[in-house]
Amino acid sequence: MAEIIPLQRSPRPTPRDVEPLWRDALGDRLRRLRHERGERLADTAERAGVSPQYLSEIERGLKEPSSEMIAAVAGALDVTLIELTAAVVDDLRAQASERAAVGCRADFALAA
Amino acid sequence: MAEIIPLQRSPRPTPRDVEPLWRDALGDRLRRLRHERGERLADTAERAGVSPQYLSEIERGLKEPSSEMIAAVAGALDVTLIELTAAVVDDLRAQASERAAVGCRADFALAA
Repeated sequence: MAEIIPLQRSPRPTPRDVEPLWRDALGDRLRRLRHERGERLADTAERAGVSPQYLSEIERGLKEPSSEMIAAVAGALDVTLIELTAAVVDDLRAQASERAAVGCRADFALAA
Repeated sequence: MAEIIPLQRSPRPTPRDVEPLWRDALGDRLRRLRHERGERLADTAERAGVSPQYLSEIERGLKEPSSEMIAAVAGALDVTLIELTAAVVDDLRAQASERAAVGCRADFALAA
């Protein structure tokens, strides 16, 4: 009986392997919401009751914000926790689609 | 000219006032995912590389898990960060709908 040889595929990381961390996705979205309001770090941070330095670290994913901090910054940006987390999920999905598209283009380039 | 008197409404908290904290919603969903798999704390905790006690505290919203910890527990439950956070958003929306329904019933009872 003929042996079935599977097609060789280049090993590609699964979505989970390359998923960003929660605080990175959250920080990106918080920064985007602040920019959409045309605010400086100091503006938003003051309303949230944190230092501009600390808010900057949260936005860059360098600090893990507590849930109370997430609520305070969301409140300062006038969004609910639902709106904020739903936007982060949308961002994560868009990034996953982009990673998948890049993977397909890489496969196409290898096959050509 | 007749004065317009607005209808009196009982003060009701806005959704933001009564929103749960992120870690509470996250913990609830993690516990639900574990139960859906029919697993004990020890089973999931071992795969995530944490103690059962620590996982229990995360599930009950008593500990703020780091993003690395969220990724580890999600991996142990075989869900991506996208799937996990999307499920938390669904939970938050369902809870908000329930709170709104309770508010309407309370208003109806007051009006009756």
